Amino acid sequence: MERPSLESLETPAALVDMTRVEANLRRVEAYARQHGLKWRPHTKTHKVPELAALQLRAGASGITVATPHEAQVMASVAEDVFLAYPPVGAARLERLMRLPAHVRLSVGLDSREALEGLSAAARRAGRTVGVLVELDLGMHRVGVQGPSEAVDLARQLEATDGVEYRGITFYPGHVRSPVGSQDTVLKELSARLEEFIDVLSGAGLRSPVVSGGSTPTLWRSHEVVGLTEIRPGINIFNDRNTASLGACAWEECAYSVLATVVSTAVSGQAVIDAGSKALAKEEGLAPGGGYGVLLERPEVVVRGLSEEHGLLELAGTSWRPRVGERVRVVPNHVCASVNLHERLWAVRGGAVEGAWAVTGRGWGAP
Amino acid sequence: MERPSLESLETPAALVDMTRVEANLRRVEAYARQHGLKWRPHTKTHKVPELAALQLRAGASGITVATPHEAQVMASVAEDVFLAYPPVGAARLERLMRLPAHVRLSVGLDSREALEGLSAAARRAGRTVGVLVELDLGMHRVGVQGPSEAVDLARQLEATDGVEYRGITFYPGHVRSPVGSQDTVLKELSARLEEFIDVLSGAGLRSPVVSGGSTPTLWRSHEVVGLTEIRPGINIFNDRNTASLGACAWEECAYSVLATVVSTAVSGQAVIDAGSKALAKEEGLAPGGGYGVLLERPEVVVRGLSEEHGLLELAGTSWRPRVGERVRVVPNHVCASVNLHERLWAVRGGAVEGAWAVTGRGWGAP
Repeated sequence: MERPSLESLETPAALVDMTRVEANLRRVEAYARQHGLKWRPHTKTHKVPELAALQLRAGASGITVATPHEAQVMASVAEDVFLAYPPVGAARLERLMRLPAHVRLSVGLDSREALEGLSAAARRAGRTVGVLVELDLGMHRVGVQGPSEAVDLARQLEATDGVEYRGITFYPGHVRSPVGSQDTVLKELSARLEEFIDVLSGAGLRSPVVSGGSTPTLWRSHEVVGLTEIRPGINIFNDRNTASLGACAWEECAYSVLATVVSTAVSGQAVIDAGSKALAKEEGLAPGGGYGVLLERPEVVVRGLSEEHGLLELAGTSWRPRVGERVRVVPNHVCASVNLHERLWAVRGGAVEGAWAVTGRGWGAP
Repeated sequence: MERPSLESLETPAALVDMTRVEANLRRVEAYARQHGLKWRPHTKTHKVPELAALQLRAGASGITVATPHEAQVMASVAEDVFLAYPPVGAARLERLMRLPAHVRLSVGLDSREALEGLSAAARRAGRTVGVLVELDLGMHRVGVQGPSEAVDLARQLEATDGVEYRGITFYPGHVRSPVGSQDTVLKELSARLEEFIDVLSGAGLRSPVVSGGSTPTLWRSHEVVGLTEIRPGINIFNDRNTASLGACAWEECAYSVLATVVSTAVSGQAVIDAGSKALAKEEGLAPGGGYGVLLERPEVVVRGLSEEHGLLELAGTSWRPRVGERVRVVPNHVCASVNLHERLWAVRGGAVEGAWAVTGRGWGAP
């Protein structure tokens, strides 16, 4: 494909600022190295193998995925893949077992049922799958509730062929406070994690991997006692929520959706052609509400979304766009926006450098 | 592709109950015929040309689309296409003008800028595009604000080559009250519409097409004076919001997402593998909140969503699912859910009848 100019792109179009991506990767790699943590980025944010390859070249020790399909797509560039999701059901398990034999696979899970399905599939496929026991450290979404359950599951793991106990995993998705206000919640989380590690260790279960972390808690990961590995996803691109928590600077937002103003008929607002189908309807953590803000005019909020319409609120700005004018929107939650686009355009200094197909979308062909 | 069994489908999977779809189409066709209204379904709900063909065979007079890409995809089966969205920007206009010459195309718009771009592109392409002037009848999203503006735009239209004034269009997306409580809002809307028609008519502008309607207002469309055409989208599938407004019966919900329970570790809830990436995070109009309910157990609400996780609330049910059990979820807003799936599975009486690629997703290849 010829490289189109930024001006000629059909909107809405998902843009990735490569200068910022590279800086974001350097920063997290340096942080992980400084604190002796392994860095295993969650690739569900971008769903693009070329970007996973960039992360691995930048120093990532392996990658994280959310689905067997993402694992398949990423296996073209990654040799060490952690599926942070229990593969339940015959079709998902079969897809996972079709990964190339050289891929070092591990999986997070929290139930005997998931473990039994996985181990049976692994034995049939003649492979050994590493397992991390998923802990609930306060998010209350998934994860075993207490140390004794973790011990039970780990013991069952050690007694089962086709799987191998490798440690524990958690996701602190409940921590959505600004980086500077995380002291209490991180202390509680760290104390709870130590309790799990101690009880497992007391039961003779060594946990070589203690994997956790998210982008909001990224820069305080070193305060979590016992952690060996971080798995930030959003950090490669960042987004409005991440900036509003202070987990990135505004200038570290590398992803935006290019959109065109299509109507200014209703006073006090302008309508752009990036709606929920391009930005995703994800609640904001920023005080201004709405679903995103303009990259170059962060005071302008996307107040409402329908599928193909984004409503820009013009009350707080003297800017009055004309129909046909283009803007770039930073969405609240970048992962959900990326998932809506067939391709991402790499841009650098105002020029289009290339495009990637977002091949990790969906759950794979039957 | 061989027909898989329903039991073997990898989850999440989007299912369409064909018996219900056929009944839904028969019902709306009979309603439109009874009231002398043309039926031009909005195909953005399903984004599948085969389903547009089914609607046309069932008596639709043409179809509605939201994007030039949808128009391209649907042009394989439809000869009369209304783009209910202003095509602004060179790339969108070029895509639209690449439609086969035999397609009778019309477009809704609300600005001189959009009109100028469209007419210039139409002249270059050597085609005549019908235009409906978009009115704001209370939604305050897009649309000219008053009759004099409608007259101005229609006059400019009549004076411009490449385009042809065909009438007016509106979308009553602000009407989200139960069908039985729409009296006042429909009276206001109808009075405002008559005012537009009268002023246009007084200015010598005949409006052969008066196009409007949505699924929530569908069954009361005949009360809107002057209306010639209805454009329901959701009605082919229906969804939780539509049922909660009384615009369909629960037994008319034809779309659901098949999902697998993947965790029951946290008490009082079960986690399924249909999250915001499968169901869409769309606010509910139903009193119970959440993002969807189970088709077979509508008392069980999807209380929370993350990308790959749906949280089923178990407080109001004695049902205690096991990991591996499968459920079908009716989402709040079906269009947003369909847009997340690569394919829809047609099912009838518990068997898979076939599958369609959702080819109208996205905005088209560059």
